Amino acid sequence: MHAGILAASPGFVVAGLADAVPAAAEGVSASTGAPVMSIEALVASSDVDTVAICSSTDTHADLTVAAARAGKAVFCEKPLSLSLTEVDRALAAVDAAGVPFMIGFNRRFDPAHRSVRDAVAEGDIGDLHLLRITSRDPAPPPPEYVAGSGGIFLDMAIHDFDMARYVAGSEVVEVYARGAVRVDPRIGEAGDVDTAVTLLVHADGTLTTIDNSRRAAYGYDQRIEAFGSGGMAVSDNATTHDAWLLTEKGRTGQPPPYFFLERYVESYRHEWAQFHAYLVGGGSSPAGVDAARACTRIALAAGRSLREGRPVRIDEIG
Amino acid sequence: MHAGILAASPGFVVAGLADAVPAAAEGVSASTGAPVMSIEALVASSDVDTVAICSSTDTHADLTVAAARAGKAVFCEKPLSLSLTEVDRALAAVDAAGVPFMIGFNRRFDPAHRSVRDAVAEGDIGDLHLLRITSRDPAPPPPEYVAGSGGIFLDMAIHDFDMARYVAGSEVVEVYARGAVRVDPRIGEAGDVDTAVTLLVHADGTLTTIDNSRRAAYGYDQRIEAFGSGGMAVSDNATTHDAWLLTEKGRTGQPPPYFFLERYVESYRHEWAQFHAYLVGGGSSPAGVDAARACTRIALAAGRSLREGRPVRIDEIG
Amino acid sequence: MHAGILAASPGFVVAGLADAVPAAAEGVSASTGAPVMSIEALVASSDVDTVAICSSTDTHADLTVAAARAGKAVFCEKPLSLSLTEVDRALAAVDAAGVPFMIGFNRRFDPAHRSVRDAVAEGDIGDLHLLRITSRDPAPPPPEYVAGSGGIFLDMAIHDFDMARYVAGSEVVEVYARGAVRVDPRIGEAGDVDTAVTLLVHADGTLTTIDNSRRAAYGYDQRIEAFGSGGMAVSDNATTHDAWLLTEKGRTGQPPPYFFLERYVESYRHEWAQFHAYLVGGGSSPAGVDAARACTRIALAAGRSLREGRPVRIDEIG
Amino acid sequence: MHAGILAASPGFVVAGLADAVPAAAEGVSASTGAPVMSIEALVASSDVDTVAICSSTDTHADLTVAAARAGKAVFCEKPLSLSLTEVDRALAAVDAAGVPFMIGFNRRFDPAHRSVRDAVAEGDIGDLHLLRITSRDPAPPPPEYVAGSGGIFLDMAIHDFDMARYVAGSEVVEVYARGAVRVDPRIGEAGDVDTAVTLLVHADGTLTTIDNSRRAAYGYDQRIEAFGSGGMAVSDNATTHDAWLLTEKGRTGQPPPYFFLERYVESYRHEWAQFHAYLVGGGSSPAGVDAARACTRIALAAGRSLREGRPVRIDEIG
Repeated sequence: MHAGILAASPGFVVAGLADAVPAAAEGVSASTGAPVMSIEALVASSDVDTVAICSSTDTHADLTVAAARAGKAVFCEKPLSLSLTEVDRALAAVDAAGVPFMIGFNRRFDPAHRSVRDAVAEGDIGDLHLLRITSRDPAPPPPEYVAGSGGIFLDMAIHDFDMARYVAGSEVVEVYARGAVRVDPRIGEAGDVDTAVTLLVHADGTLTTIDNSRRAAYGYDQRIEAFGSGGMAVSDNATTHDAWLLTEKGRTGQPPPYFFLERYVESYRHEWAQFHAYLVGGGSSPAGVDAARACTRIALAAGRSLREGRPVRIDEIG
Repeated sequence: MHAGILAASPGFVVAGLADAVPAAAEGVSASTGAPVMSIEALVASSDVDTVAICSSTDTHADLTVAAARAGKAVFCEKPLSLSLTEVDRALAAVDAAGVPFMIGFNRRFDPAHRSVRDAVAEGDIGDLHLLRITSRDPAPPPPEYVAGSGGIFLDMAIHDFDMARYVAGSEVVEVYARGAVRVDPRIGEAGDVDTAVTLLVHADGTLTTIDNSRRAAYGYDQRIEAFGSGGMAVSDNATTHDAWLLTEKGRTGQPPPYFFLERYVESYRHEWAQFHAYLVGGGSSPAGVDAARACTRIALAAGRSLREGRPVRIDEIG
Repeated sequence: MHAGILAASPGFVVAGLADAVPAAAEGVSASTGAPVMSIEALVASSDVDTVAICSSTDTHADLTVAAARAGKAVFCEKPLSLSLTEVDRALAAVDAAGVPFMIGFNRRFDPAHRSVRDAVAEGDIGDLHLLRITSRDPAPPPPEYVAGSGGIFLDMAIHDFDMARYVAGSEVVEVYARGAVRVDPRIGEAGDVDTAVTLLVHADGTLTTIDNSRRAAYGYDQRIEAFGSGGMAVSDNATTHDAWLLTEKGRTGQPPPYFFLERYVESYRHEWAQFHAYLVGGGSSPAGVDAARACTRIALAAGRSLREGRPVRIDEIG
Repeated sequence: MHAGILAASPGFVVAGLADAVPAAAEGVSASTGAPVMSIEALVASSDVDTVAICSSTDTHADLTVAAARAGKAVFCEKPLSLSLTEVDRALAAVDAAGVPFMIGFNRRFDPAHRSVRDAVAEGDIGDLHLLRITSRDPAPPPPEYVAGSGGIFLDMAIHDFDMARYVAGSEVVEVYARGAVRVDPRIGEAGDVDTAVTLLVHADGTLTTIDNSRRAAYGYDQRIEAFGSGGMAVSDNATTHDAWLLTEKGRTGQPPPYFFLERYVESYRHEWAQFHAYLVGGGSSPAGVDAARACTRIALAAGRSLREGRPVRIDEIG
């Protein structure tokens, strides 16, 4: 997906492709015209100034280190690693090399979510008091994926933790999480939950609640609500289109888009545009080292809270 | 209905009741405590300073004349008469007596409709260009009622003609109407249509379309849309309540309120309050002689247009 | 408020009025025609078969005991008491007397909220997984009221605890609460918070989040969202009316009704109707002893969780 | 625009480009890789089996004839011509050559509009009684464009006439139109109106109202409402995104997309996909000769009605 959007993004040329599954790379090569390379060759190539790491999570840290050491700018999909030690090792390499870095928190670039953040930042709703985030997938991943995913907090809710920090503009200091296995018992057997609620306390006193489910029957549910002293800013669910029917049974409208490809395609386009602006113009990363590290800590704290049945302070992590 | 709302309206005391069906008056008397009288006694009573005429249409003109001659303030339900000659006779009596007069165009007092009118009057949508009015009943009246009703334009659309004048603030100069029998063939046998579209041209160039149906499967459909150089003001349908369901089949919400008792009860309360303010404070009527006369002419022009298949200028009527 | 609605409710006659502030009782007497009495006389009167206790919270338990001992049916406003011991004393008196009892959890009778509960009970959304309740007042009570109110959980969120039990149909077993003083520092000085989030775990694994604020700039915010294996049922905010404006700045609509009088008037009417049906027809109370006691325990657990910074199990209370 | 969407449409290869403004063709050539040719060479090329005519209206008929005579399939933008004689000449050439033909009525392929048509066709709203179409542009074209455009009915409302036929599934037999110059007096000086209402009578008795404006302050307004014996199907305006703000001033949401590029991009993609399926699979055209001819007649009838101030029967035209 990323290769296709990147190829159509002004300012980027896909100069090479590497994939652990060569056939996948060949398919993308056919549509983009970019050559398939080994990862080593790609990172070493003088035609390449930026490496976009969209591989499986367990490869992110090593690839980030390799790309940074080669002096390449780095874009890495979330999460950077399931281990804070690995996150820190990768970010240290980025820091040592002084290369640009961006983590793939694409929801920041969704126009509706962004408008909520802007409403908060510009004071349209006064001081922020409460934040509510809903994030539910239309269908759970396969149980075998769940086992290696790091769990619902590192794999799925990490996007929501990023939105909480991003919208509130205040660090998270405490996490309390509760979860349950309601969707698929095999997820429980894999040691994870499929339904979770997380309560975050921010440094400025803002309270955030996040609810997650691995399966919403009606499609991808992605909402943010920011409540403050002056009112409320809401990013509501999109709909597949805007037609509806009214009969004696009431009004019937459309469900939300099915999943992230349908819902967030525009956010990916904006993500690359923002990354390009950052590469060319400098300044701070649109989603930088601090976001990558902080969200990993929140996710680890949520996991510990769930296991230990108590609120966990962020400074207990790492 | 009116007696109950009147009895609960500050400033009014129901001092007497008259009804062609005495049993109906007795029932209302039991709940309001007001005595049942003959119409003659009621109009002559020194306890009565205001007569509210909510009887069948064919009695309106005579009762208005009788009440006005007795020096009473007059409230009369719409339409004042099916005949412009009768309307003029009644209004002449009001004029000669110098008594306050109000016609029962209750929709003016609905908060949502009124906000559209206010948006137009205050320039919130710039200059008005187009007006769209939808008015559909949930169920047709009995065919025998239709026969004496004066037809869909005098019986039903007259409310919409009033809204057109009221919202636009400009007189109607030309009317074109088309209709069909789609709901019940007995309405056609009674010489009327049950489905109609009317196009009004106002003196200032504003164009109004009105669509009417005697039967909307989903309930009472009452909408107004005013479009101007600066935007659009809309009075949308209410819903019975605000709960909804979202499943894989999409989103399901509530239908509108069933009929005028449910939809417009608040407008009736405001209507009596406005009437009271006018009786006490003077000034121009909240819905006066000009509205009663002008809407009758528009309705008669619509009927002629439908029969003759051509646009009819208002000055051809009366 | 209750006297007026009661007086208009079929099946009830207001037979007597008692108020700690005699002038208040006189005012209600004038509009309802019922005589003002001492509480003792009212409870002892053979004209009275049912006592509606709508006085200040600290009088509820004693009045419930007195009315029950006199063999009267009892309706009591929430909360029954700030103390579980007092609640138990009052409910024991009700039990000993064998009189009908109902607690004033009016939100159960709101048509929109009720439709969410019905959707859950009838399986329209499959198995319930998550419940989200938002309850925000338009303006905080005076600080002096707050001091004696029992705090935000007993005074305000108790309605939401009732909705959680009522909609989920499963007892609450654990409570975690976080709060902050964001609205008015005097509320903090009175020992309370004005902003709170509560996370409930139900016996069947359902997770409920509740967020409360003493001040929503836009009016009374009352929403319930039930999410299950088959979809989502939502009771959304009402609006004052359904008109809106669309200009180049976007679409502007109406805020919610200002407060409970505007939002919940229909729920009060249904409440009395349900109470009447229960008095006449017997069966289980529409909001009985179990609800009164369970919600007090949840509120006390929430208060303890907030003070002690840990989840509190319901069986730790009482 | 079409070249870019075509180039990305499965099954199509842009084999050549011709443009009266060579620089425009060069720009498209750079992005699509297709060579620039003369029109004559393009029509004669054996590499070309389909000609998409997206040039100015006055060239459509000649190019359609040329392409058809060369045995090419033809896609032609609306309107085919401002003259029914020219339309007939072009369609006769298509007929004589037996080549596939499609007219660019893209709105048929918008998912929301299509769902309204499907609701009617499948009986979801019973028998169709009324159709309401709103079509307002965000900004008027330059006055010099207006002069050669054929007027608001042939240039703009022709899309709405197509939707009326397409959704109703019944031919139009009578047209009545009213118009005004409210947006820009230069449009009046160019002999056209910028605000219009059209009332269509269909063969089966359905009544359609269409309102058009050359300037909606809030963006592109594109709505269809079908009302029938069983209910109502509505294609409502889209919004730029789904975030909103609620403050003491009420609720503020997003306006619709600005214009057709933003609103209808998906319809263009579907249009080419449907055209491709027709070219490959045969059958009847997704928008064929009958639509091109019938909509021109309706537009000409509307113009005559506006000029002559009377309803015009379609069989008076051509």
